Amino acid sequence: MKLKDMYTFVKKDLQSIEAELERSVSSAHPLLQQSGTDLLKAGGKRIRPVFVLLSAQYGDYDADKVKKAAAALELIHMASLVHDDVVDDADIRRGRRTIKSQYDDKIAMYVGDFIFARALQLMSEIREPAAHQILAEGIREMCLGEIQQIKEQFDTEQNVRQYLRRIKRKTALLIAMSCQLGAIASGAPVSVQRNLYEFGYNAGMAFQLTDDILDFTSTEKELGKPAGGDLKQGNLTLPALYAMYKVPGLKEKIMDYYAGKGELKPLLAAVKESGAIEFSAKASAAYLEKAVVAANMLPNHAARTSLLKIAGYIGRRKF
Amino acid sequence: MKLKDMYTFVKKDLQSIEAELERSVSSAHPLLQQSGTDLLKAGGKRIRPVFVLLSAQYGDYDADKVKKAAAALELIHMASLVHDDVVDDADIRRGRRTIKSQYDDKIAMYVGDFIFARALQLMSEIREPAAHQILAEGIREMCLGEIQQIKEQFDTEQNVRQYLRRIKRKTALLIAMSCQLGAIASGAPVSVQRNLYEFGYNAGMAFQLTDDILDFTSTEKELGKPAGGDLKQGNLTLPALYAMYKVPGLKEKIMDYYAGKGELKPLLAAVKESGAIEFSAKASAAYLEKAVVAANMLPNHAARTSLLKIAGYIGRRKF
Repeated sequence: MKLKDMYTFVKKDLQSIEAELERSVSSAHPLLQQSGTDLLKAGGKRIRPVFVLLSAQYGDYDADKVKKAAAALELIHMASLVHDDVVDDADIRRGRRTIKSQYDDKIAMYVGDFIFARALQLMSEIREPAAHQILAEGIREMCLGEIQQIKEQFDTEQNVRQYLRRIKRKTALLIAMSCQLGAIASGAPVSVQRNLYEFGYNAGMAFQLTDDILDFTSTEKELGKPAGGDLKQGNLTLPALYAMYKVPGLKEKIMDYYAGKGELKPLLAAVKESGAIEFSAKASAAYLEKAVVAANMLPNHAARTSLLKIAGYIGRRKF
Repeated sequence: MKLKDMYTFVKKDLQSIEAELERSVSSAHPLLQQSGTDLLKAGGKRIRPVFVLLSAQYGDYDADKVKKAAAALELIHMASLVHDDVVDDADIRRGRRTIKSQYDDKIAMYVGDFIFARALQLMSEIREPAAHQILAEGIREMCLGEIQQIKEQFDTEQNVRQYLRRIKRKTALLIAMSCQLGAIASGAPVSVQRNLYEFGYNAGMAFQLTDDILDFTSTEKELGKPAGGDLKQGNLTLPALYAMYKVPGLKEKIMDYYAGKGELKPLLAAVKESGAIEFSAKASAAYLEKAVVAANMLPNHAARTSLLKIAGYIGRRKF
């Protein structure tokens, strides 16, 4: 079953969110118009807005309000990717050239800021003080995550705890907030808000772990960007950390590679042969299991089935 | 009379805003703690929070709410300076090394994002939907201004209208919003909100025009950064635009300089001798006059005297 097919439940609302996103990135400024349209066309799984829409089913569904929150969260995600690509020096994402590669780092900084400002404009129409507080706190954490990533880049001495905190800030929090804000925007009970947050957090951790596995196991065609990019760019993810711990001498070889000596290919092979992929897959499955537990504590509702299907998909997907 | 002496009216509140700013930039992360503290220590005129405090006098002054808005606006200003310095490749500001020079562009991008997120956290405690909408719209305009600045950098064909739109977005809007949000946060009547916005907008234009004049007429010691930096960095301000229009051959010489031929010094001298300084000072005075008109439409209040004194100061200051 494909991801799109799991979206049928919210298909119509998702279409109007796509229209809202188009409106939001549209600008009289040609550069912004172009880069905004490019970002939207590049697609993406739209997991955050879908989670907002599904979570909102647990309350008194106000389509307009919920759609605005959904679009805002996708815009925040988009803005963070634009800034991410600056930090990661990434030229390709989803098979397209990144903003920083098409223009430069400075333009990318402000395109990110602009998209983020658009997200704030949408959010400002939602009159739920709690939503604003949660979002502001979450954005702060995301920034800390990025700064942490810059600091820990190429640091072969880091531990798994640092990695987990990084992916929590980088990915899991925004997905958790998507679920929580969907519930808040529709006035769902606090207990439901909390369970949805728990669900989103754990699904998000599984999602990022899977992403980090696929960076080793997938092809460039499947990923839409060169495989092995994380290791190459000094982004040491769980598979690399596990392999460095298990394979004698690998850490030194990776350090040599970062010092300009040796090739990337044998390092990628060593990580794959170390059992790191299986270990990381187990970690992802453990988070997914926690997501299922949280979802099962929610009231029975058709939305729950969709949430679980999507979480299962993103935690196990092959690309 | 010094600027500080004009602040006596709000001195006590301003002190507690300083404390709020310190709390806001404090972080467990050493890099953030250091750069935040550095930014605060570098000082600044704190014009935006002072305008918030003074404007709030026109309503039912809720000290806690107003102080949060004031601190948030100063943080937004600080965040924008950090991103500005990346775009301008500026190494020195207020006599200190900029974040981008101490670390790098990427760190500066996220330090800016972090400070901005802190501002959002403060704002999220203010439950005035109108305030959030105004702020989000204003931040969007500020981003557009930065993108416009990148695009128009080194563009010797630009006109004065482009310059004015740039300084509106870069400076005047945030000052206008400071006045408006102060009034909104204290529940002042809409007509007062509008007049304060008008006042702030025009005072802000005069302020930036004066800033751009001083970049030609002041010394490095007075400015806290090298003089002539605007022209050097391709930021073509009113004095340069006027001089290029008046002095035959100057535009070509500036273009040559940007192409790597010739010296900066004779260009700066040519601008100063062209009458551009006097012309720009008149433009600044005209905006200041409009600010006075707007202020005079406000109800009689001691705050008005302070607003006018400060506007007069920032529009006429020598450094």
